[in-house]
Amino acid sequence: MSNAPLRVAFLGQRGSYSEAAAVAFFGDTVETVSYKDFDSIFEAVTGGEVERGILPVENSLAGSIHRNYDLLLRHELSIVGETQIPIAHQLIALPGVQLADVQKVYSHPQALAQCEHSLNRLLPHAERVSAYDTAGSAKMLRDENITTAAALSSRRAAKIYQMNILQADMQDNPENYTRFVVVAQEPVVPQGQAKTSIVFAMDNVPGALFKSLAVFALRDIDLTKMESRPLQGKRWQYFFYIDFLGSVHEERCRNALNHLQEITSFFRVLGSYPKGV
Amino acid sequence: MSNAPLRVAFLGQRGSYSEAAAVAFFGDTVETVSYKDFDSIFEAVTGGEVERGILPVENSLAGSIHRNYDLLLRHELSIVGETQIPIAHQLIALPGVQLADVQKVYSHPQALAQCEHSLNRLLPHAERVSAYDTAGSAKMLRDENITTAAALSSRRAAKIYQMNILQADMQDNPENYTRFVVVAQEPVVPQGQAKTSIVFAMDNVPGALFKSLAVFALRDIDLTKMESRPLQGKRWQYFFYIDFLGSVHEERCRNALNHLQEITSFFRVLGSYPKGV
Repeated sequence: MSNAPLRVAFLGQRGSYSEAAAVAFFGDTVETVSYKDFDSIFEAVTGGEVERGILPVENSLAGSIHRNYDLLLRHELSIVGETQIPIAHQLIALPGVQLADVQKVYSHPQALAQCEHSLNRLLPHAERVSAYDTAGSAKMLRDENITTAAALSSRRAAKIYQMNILQADMQDNPENYTRFVVVAQEPVVPQGQAKTSIVFAMDNVPGALFKSLAVFALRDIDLTKMESRPLQGKRWQYFFYIDFLGSVHEERCRNALNHLQEITSFFRVLGSYPKGV
Repeated sequence: MSNAPLRVAFLGQRGSYSEAAAVAFFGDTVETVSYKDFDSIFEAVTGGEVERGILPVENSLAGSIHRNYDLLLRHELSIVGETQIPIAHQLIALPGVQLADVQKVYSHPQALAQCEHSLNRLLPHAERVSAYDTAGSAKMLRDENITTAAALSSRRAAKIYQMNILQADMQDNPENYTRFVVVAQEPVVPQGQAKTSIVFAMDNVPGALFKSLAVFALRDIDLTKMESRPLQGKRWQYFFYIDFLGSVHEERCRNALNHLQEITSFFRVLGSYPKGV
């Protein structure tokens, strides 16, 4: 790779949590490129418009972002890293706007939901308006010079759009984290402690799932996450996504995956990558 | 219970898929009562406004309706039955409206997504407008006498709101089914083939999930579904929801559940109920 900064596709407007995750993972010199939906991020990495994509896969309160699990399966990209960032929603508005001026609060529906109690206490009569992005809500207030509304967005967004924080840390539950994976065209060989993500399907026979977990348990391999998604066209059958500690470059894990393939009808490694902190 | 018809809470306007599921499960004599969100359905059953609630838990294409898994845990209701119905989206409009008149198509975002290819082919330039309910979209066209738009909704909704089907079966994938559970204040004792739904959490130790599945596999109990949801306040720990064939009134299943409780930090039976067809 040249010395040009790495380009990373992220979801939403500048100041989004996805962009914050990209900066947390790659550092300040990264060139972040905004995309409007997850599909476009996968296509941008696949087509070489950018070198990396960053995708939220799980929030500690709301659960998995299932769309990205489905897209990981549909595309041929590799997971090459992971990171997690705290999600802290700030109530922000244009300079001069007071809490009493706020008639509407814009944000992503999930952010609105995660601040429900704080909003009820602070702004019981303000209308909640769903937008497609937290940072996009802030940008919209700035672009359209709206002084009768606020947005729930990150500190980073407040800074970027030069807005004031009317009330900090609005999220009802402070234990609010989102885990992101980094995708690229080519896999990496992780150094140090590694994690591996796989996806597989099995014939719908009794005990199938138990047998699939046995290949890990019998080798003392720790699972960190398991998710199921519908297998399109086969009613009430599933793809299983598993994350485990270890790398496909370790013999113990290779043996487990070979064993797993004896009993699966579909199997793919999504990537081995350094375990995030 | 008296001879008064059973009242069942369902989501959405009359003609919704949830109402169709209630009729499929209870028969035509049931009294269906419309509610606007899932929380209200749980509250209506808990408070005795209605005797039963019907809740979608899983679509064969889109996956689980996670909100209802979370609500099953939060409330103290029992699952007393299940049913599944085919989801077939019809493009419907007021009488006299032709395909060429349709500038907007209203429906629930999931219905719009499930008809994406058909819509692109049939109405490439029509605007897609998200609404909170498929049947509610049809009702809105009827109530406001809108003749420049269509809705994606069920055959049942077309009949109720006296609208015409411009194009039948718009869903891109015909293998589109939704599974519903029926909830009540009190559990039932199922006759014939039964299914049981449970939810549990475990200490985050290696092999924990494997051991939990072992209690079923060692007794030849078939699992039909497994779902994980975040355990609020414990980052990257999970509640596991499992459906298995059998009833808590069978000794083999009781033994398995006793065994499971040896290794879980939280455990609850959501209900044993007759297996749906």
